Amino acid sequence: MSDYVTVTFEPAGVKARVPVGTNLYEAAQQAGVALAGSCGGQGICGECQVFVTEGIVSEPNSQEKKLLSAALIEEGGRLACQTKLRGDAVVRVPITEATVVRKTLQAEWIRLVPLAPNVRRYDLALAAPSLEDQRSDFRRLADAVAPQTSDLTATTQCLRGLASALRAEDQKVSVTVVADEVVDVRPASQRSPCLGVAVDIGTSTLAAYLVDLETGKQLATAGGQNPQARFGADVISRIQYANSHGEGLIALRDEVLTAINQLIRQTVEEAGAAPADIYEATIVGNTCMHHIFLGLEPRYLAESPYVPVTTEAVSTSAEQLGLQINPQGNVFCLPCIAGFVGADTVGVIVASELTRREHPTLAVDIGTNGEIALWSGQRLLTASCAAGPAFEGAQIHYGMRAAPGAIDEVFVRDGDLAVHTIDDQPARGICGSGLFDAMAVLLELGLVDNKGRIVDGQNYGTLSDTLAARLAGEGNERCVVLADADQSANGPIALTQRDVRELQLAKSAIRASTEMLLEIAGLQSDDLAKVLIAGAFGNFIKPVSALRIGLLPEVPESKIEGVGNAAGAGAILALVSQYERDYARQVAQSAEHVELFRSSDFQDRFAEYMVFP
Amino acid sequence: MSDYVTVTFEPAGVKARVPVGTNLYEAAQQAGVALAGSCGGQGICGECQVFVTEGIVSEPNSQEKKLLSAALIEEGGRLACQTKLRGDAVVRVPITEATVVRKTLQAEWIRLVPLAPNVRRYDLALAAPSLEDQRSDFRRLADAVAPQTSDLTATTQCLRGLASALRAEDQKVSVTVVADEVVDVRPASQRSPCLGVAVDIGTSTLAAYLVDLETGKQLATAGGQNPQARFGADVISRIQYANSHGEGLIALRDEVLTAINQLIRQTVEEAGAAPADIYEATIVGNTCMHHIFLGLEPRYLAESPYVPVTTEAVSTSAEQLGLQINPQGNVFCLPCIAGFVGADTVGVIVASELTRREHPTLAVDIGTNGEIALWSGQRLLTASCAAGPAFEGAQIHYGMRAAPGAIDEVFVRDGDLAVHTIDDQPARGICGSGLFDAMAVLLELGLVDNKGRIVDGQNYGTLSDTLAARLAGEGNERCVVLADADQSANGPIALTQRDVRELQLAKSAIRASTEMLLEIAGLQSDDLAKVLIAGAFGNFIKPVSALRIGLLPEVPESKIEGVGNAAGAGAILALVSQYERDYARQVAQSAEHVELFRSSDFQDRFAEYMVFP
Repeated sequence: MSDYVTVTFEPAGVKARVPVGTNLYEAAQQAGVALAGSCGGQGICGECQVFVTEGIVSEPNSQEKKLLSAALIEEGGRLACQTKLRGDAVVRVPITEATVVRKTLQAEWIRLVPLAPNVRRYDLALAAPSLEDQRSDFRRLADAVAPQTSDLTATTQCLRGLASALRAEDQKVSVTVVADEVVDVRPASQRSPCLGVAVDIGTSTLAAYLVDLETGKQLATAGGQNPQARFGADVISRIQYANSHGEGLIALRDEVLTAINQLIRQTVEEAGAAPADIYEATIVGNTCMHHIFLGLEPRYLAESPYVPVTTEAVSTSAEQLGLQINPQGNVFCLPCIAGFVGADTVGVIVASELTRREHPTLAVDIGTNGEIALWSGQRLLTASCAAGPAFEGAQIHYGMRAAPGAIDEVFVRDGDLAVHTIDDQPARGICGSGLFDAMAVLLELGLVDNKGRIVDGQNYGTLSDTLAARLAGEGNERCVVLADADQSANGPIALTQRDVRELQLAKSAIRASTEMLLEIAGLQSDDLAKVLIAGAFGNFIKPVSALRIGLLPEVPESKIEGVGNAAGAGAILALVSQYERDYARQVAQSAEHVELFRSSDFQDRFAEYMVFP
Repeated sequence: MSDYVTVTFEPAGVKARVPVGTNLYEAAQQAGVALAGSCGGQGICGECQVFVTEGIVSEPNSQEKKLLSAALIEEGGRLACQTKLRGDAVVRVPITEATVVRKTLQAEWIRLVPLAPNVRRYDLALAAPSLEDQRSDFRRLADAVAPQTSDLTATTQCLRGLASALRAEDQKVSVTVVADEVVDVRPASQRSPCLGVAVDIGTSTLAAYLVDLETGKQLATAGGQNPQARFGADVISRIQYANSHGEGLIALRDEVLTAINQLIRQTVEEAGAAPADIYEATIVGNTCMHHIFLGLEPRYLAESPYVPVTTEAVSTSAEQLGLQINPQGNVFCLPCIAGFVGADTVGVIVASELTRREHPTLAVDIGTNGEIALWSGQRLLTASCAAGPAFEGAQIHYGMRAAPGAIDEVFVRDGDLAVHTIDDQPARGICGSGLFDAMAVLLELGLVDNKGRIVDGQNYGTLSDTLAARLAGEGNERCVVLADADQSANGPIALTQRDVRELQLAKSAIRASTEMLLEIAGLQSDDLAKVLIAGAFGNFIKPVSALRIGLLPEVPESKIEGVGNAAGAGAILALVSQYERDYARQVAQSAEHVELFRSSDFQDRFAEYMVFP
């Protein structure tokens, strides 16, 4: 094992285990981190620049010295494609627009599991039939694939070509088995890759992860917007669309299916393969996205008592569903838990092995809908709450996605607040992680009181002049300027009173839900060993900010861990291992869902947690 | 139980158990015997005439006295629709063209099995969902259908309509489950029959049996020719057609599929139902018919080492196969044993419970291809032999099917031979059962010697003048006149020397195969408890004739039993009971197939049995 080294890519925290001598560009690919780069690893374009912060790597070579300044090299700056690993290392990837966007689509949080996919490939040379061995073609094949079982079957389609396929190259064949069914037998020379794709259907974004099912390696990733957005930004408006238009559900389904098929084509093109090489797709998404994808009526998700059509894991034919992978391929949708706790939450629980942990652990998925899963050490409790899209920057006056110019960090400097923007560009707005920081810093500096009121411009009492100067507007139009006109691209960027109220409602809903689950489980926040923050920007939220605004139970900062797009990671795990799939089923079955809004306790707590700490 | 009586319909020997007072027409329907009749049971058309040979029935009524002669009534003649059962009875059904044709399509040999079909219907009133019971729609359904198991799934198609179906009539639904999959959920008021169809695909004829899967009752039967015949009369010529034409297999498949779909439509129309009410089809046929039906290449069945594509039981989607039953329905093809011992033989073994018998039993299916199954009490041995179509009247000079005017019996009367024709019409040819009789009688009367030579017209030695007068022709053109011009519709009907040779080859092949299996099993003919003759005309062969020509091992006549279309009966049993289906699988797996032609012993025996006893 001394020939292998481990490299960790920050800030995602994703690791790869690769042979000594592997360059960082290849290692990043293996870890699922897409670095920029247009010269094909020749050290010419200079786009794959990274920082080696720890560990032993090759010395900078002449290409690097030509493209990187001495000062940058002094800081650890390197071209990933030119830097070879000599030992374990930690590498920081600069956040550029490309990497941020793609990173939110990466499943960064893959744990290592033994490869045991539902799809298996066998390369066989069968004994030719003879008068002494008159077993049928299929029986000879089945005996070679699974000598011990008689459960193997074959699709009719596959049986139709079987006799010819076996005899084309003297009984040498490449065989693909999905579950217990032979779906493809072809002459050995026509062997093709054996791939799977994990798909994460978010309300806003879609992601597809292409995996080689013979090696478990991630080959390509593609992401994009969920085009259903044109029918409504959130699940409720999409459900209303489906209810109120005759073919509404079909239209919604077609939109997302077309987009997913496009992403799948992108990934296979990138990997030099074909859609027909994909024999299985695993799907995660919230219950509404899950229902629409399968064509199930979402109507009753939104009407009391909020009952899904099904919460079971669904296995169905790709062809029947219209998913453009191999027509004989299988589609596996991870199970859901309740109307608003879907397969995405199951994915998070699977990826984080929540219910296999010894100590109580909380997982919070922050999005328009907040999903909370609490593992007490014995019971798995889940709840959902309508947090609204504030945390994602929507309905925030200057909200924007994590792109160059977005304020992604806010901090205190010299008694004033200061901001960092992505790529150090002039400020153009504020993204999710910036919002958390801003809220925390405004509380810390006394610019917002614990009831969520921006301090009145006329009556700011103890504030320094510097801080007071950041206040603007009157009454409900009050705001705090985060970046003034000089720092910004198009005029000042501010957080408004309305923005603060949105954030306050959102954090209060999540916190009240969390506290309710803790109480039901008979736990105190002290009992929690970890608090996991899932969701696209989970990795970018500063724990200290989340704590400061009271989003999370009062735990030491060190217990908070961002797990990124753990839902997608769960889909990948279900793709590469049947045991993980079984685990997902078991998670969904054992979960005790709590319908919080019914409880007057919840309403009390919601009001209580409107107050900032 | 004293309210029920048993009625046996001869010559099929099929029984029905019905309430006292049931009329014979209804009882015949229930037994699967299709009587003629066009007045709807009003006693007007007189077509349903039968003979009551034993038992207690109502006295002839005025309708019967009007339509039947006193002499006929004296013999037991009755109108079935007017005759009510008062106790157990035996009824003889006259053999008319209609009944013969239909009878060969009946599965006369159904044994009574507990109803346990793969398709199950549930009429449920589910509890409405509530905030206290937020189980998904599917979970509530599944818990009601199968409270103990979590294995139940549903088709995506079914899930798509589930929410609306449950809510249309206040959670009252009619649910159809195939295997472990819910395929149909509809509001209770839209309940429809729950049907299955058993299909027997013969090389020459097709038969479809419609069964109510809620009661196990046979509702309707339809039969017809296999239209593949235009591509060749036997399996070898059809395989050659498939091999030598690009789309040959597709053409053959389309022909038979179209014909089967037509038969299915006939049966459901007769039963006042719709094809969509059929949720499962079971299929028997020889291995070639089985392969073509599924679209599997039959090529290698006909090339050494005669390997089928598959011999396993195949379950597949009706929609995918193009079988016009419910698109969500299942098609179950019974397993085959070898290239020339197919699902039809498995059906015969299942119907006759061959391998559950205590004593050694032989089953012989007589057709173009002879299939022989020997149960030794411990081992199941199977063999096939190419008997040629002689026994079915093909390649016989005056051969014809069992229709009016066909000689169906030949016997000795007053030192001469005499014939019976179907419906006592002037003779037009000779059908299968007549051929057996004719051959036996000709041997008995010395018109054919034990080497199969028709006695020379110039040198007939000891023959009476009457018999000598039946000889005609010279050399290879020699023949024996069975019916002279006076008895016949279009000139004399004779059995030619060539005909005798054909029959001799056929019987020799079957007898040699049988003897080989007995030898392999270490048995003598004395050890056999029963010899079952399967095949469309198995019921019509006189055991004494079959023994006289040496077709069967030397057993007492009483041990020979005709079991009719037992293959079709096997398909029906597999339709109405999963246990019978399991039994079929077990039969196919345990069978030891013997490839006889490889053995020089077989060639010796074949030559030996060319000699008549």
